[in-house]
Amino acid sequence: MSRPAISFWFEFASTYSYLSAMRIETLAAKRGVDIDWRPFLLGPIFADLGWSTSPFNIQPAKGSYMWRDMERQCELLSLPLSRPEPFPQNGIKAARIAWCLRKSEWIGGFVRAVYAAEFGQRQDISDAAFLASVLVDIGASAREIMERIETGEVKAALKAEVEEAKRLGIFGSPSFVTSDGELFWGNDRLEQALEWALRHAG
Amino acid sequence: MSRPAISFWFEFASTYSYLSAMRIETLAAKRGVDIDWRPFLLGPIFADLGWSTSPFNIQPAKGSYMWRDMERQCELLSLPLSRPEPFPQNGIKAARIAWCLRKSEWIGGFVRAVYAAEFGQRQDISDAAFLASVLVDIGASAREIMERIETGEVKAALKAEVEEAKRLGIFGSPSFVTSDGELFWGNDRLEQALEWALRHAG
Repeated sequence: MSRPAISFWFEFASTYSYLSAMRIETLAAKRGVDIDWRPFLLGPIFADLGWSTSPFNIQPAKGSYMWRDMERQCELLSLPLSRPEPFPQNGIKAARIAWCLRKSEWIGGFVRAVYAAEFGQRQDISDAAFLASVLVDIGASAREIMERIETGEVKAALKAEVEEAKRLGIFGSPSFVTSDGELFWGNDRLEQALEWALRHAG
Repeated sequence: MSRPAISFWFEFASTYSYLSAMRIETLAAKRGVDIDWRPFLLGPIFADLGWSTSPFNIQPAKGSYMWRDMERQCELLSLPLSRPEPFPQNGIKAARIAWCLRKSEWIGGFVRAVYAAEFGQRQDISDAAFLASVLVDIGASAREIMERIETGEVKAALKAEVEEAKRLGIFGSPSFVTSDGELFWGNDRLEQALEWALRHAG
């Protein structure tokens, strides 16, 4: 039997993905589930539906609700919350960095640092200097990675990930996919996804 | 202190509302929370967004996911699931009946019977004969109620409920509103809504 594993598909601009990003590594480790970190972008997926921004902006009632619900969920999870301005943030550079780091020891720390700065400290996560400082903080080679994310190779790789997300039927973030192809959407499904991964390990 | 109470806003066509409808009376009774039954219609709320059908039909990936997720959630809750045809069902007559019964002893039984037939037995819930048979089964006066739902008074009352839902910021079903005005959306928030009602009883 191979070790249970789960793919964690996350868009850095996504509010509820913050809740999962801050919890997943601890929860998965406790249950002995490996994480395959899959940064992606929702923009191109929303564009296919004719949307030019977050559905939380397009539907004001749903947007107002979401921010209040985030306050409640953050309180339950003891996480800080400040509303990013603008929302949604542009997470493309952060996603490219995460793609570069995805198999490294730094990935969990980088992902949490970006989400925590974005939703806990209202940091603009599109800012290259901020992203470089996060890389320095976690001990990764900032200059090399910041150069690498401007290459065609990395840009194409992230685009390919978006296509893979579409192929898997992903339409929102966070999404979790188990080794046997079961898709779970939303922070509210993280525990069920881990449970599924455990019970259906190959 | 008044007894803790929660308003349960439900659209009969809604899949996830089935999961809440089948559970809410038992869960609320166990915690000593009163239920204010608020049938309403999502159609006019979706129409304001330019949608002529369920978002699960408009967004195929989200729709496919929802049906698979419903299978999983129904299995966890030991509820049967069959996919209504057509989806969404027209629940306007059922909603008008529920409005008539909302303060009566029959309301919980009626709501559960309709949802169970719709999502457990693929029954067309727009069918007047079916609805009358449910009323007979639960011991309510079927003929009187079936006549009453065709009156202008009941039609106007349900329309007013939709306006009230909009005023409360409701954009989906199921929704739960506590006495102090806190809104919770989705079957995944039923437990949190009951907890809130208990902790914030007036």
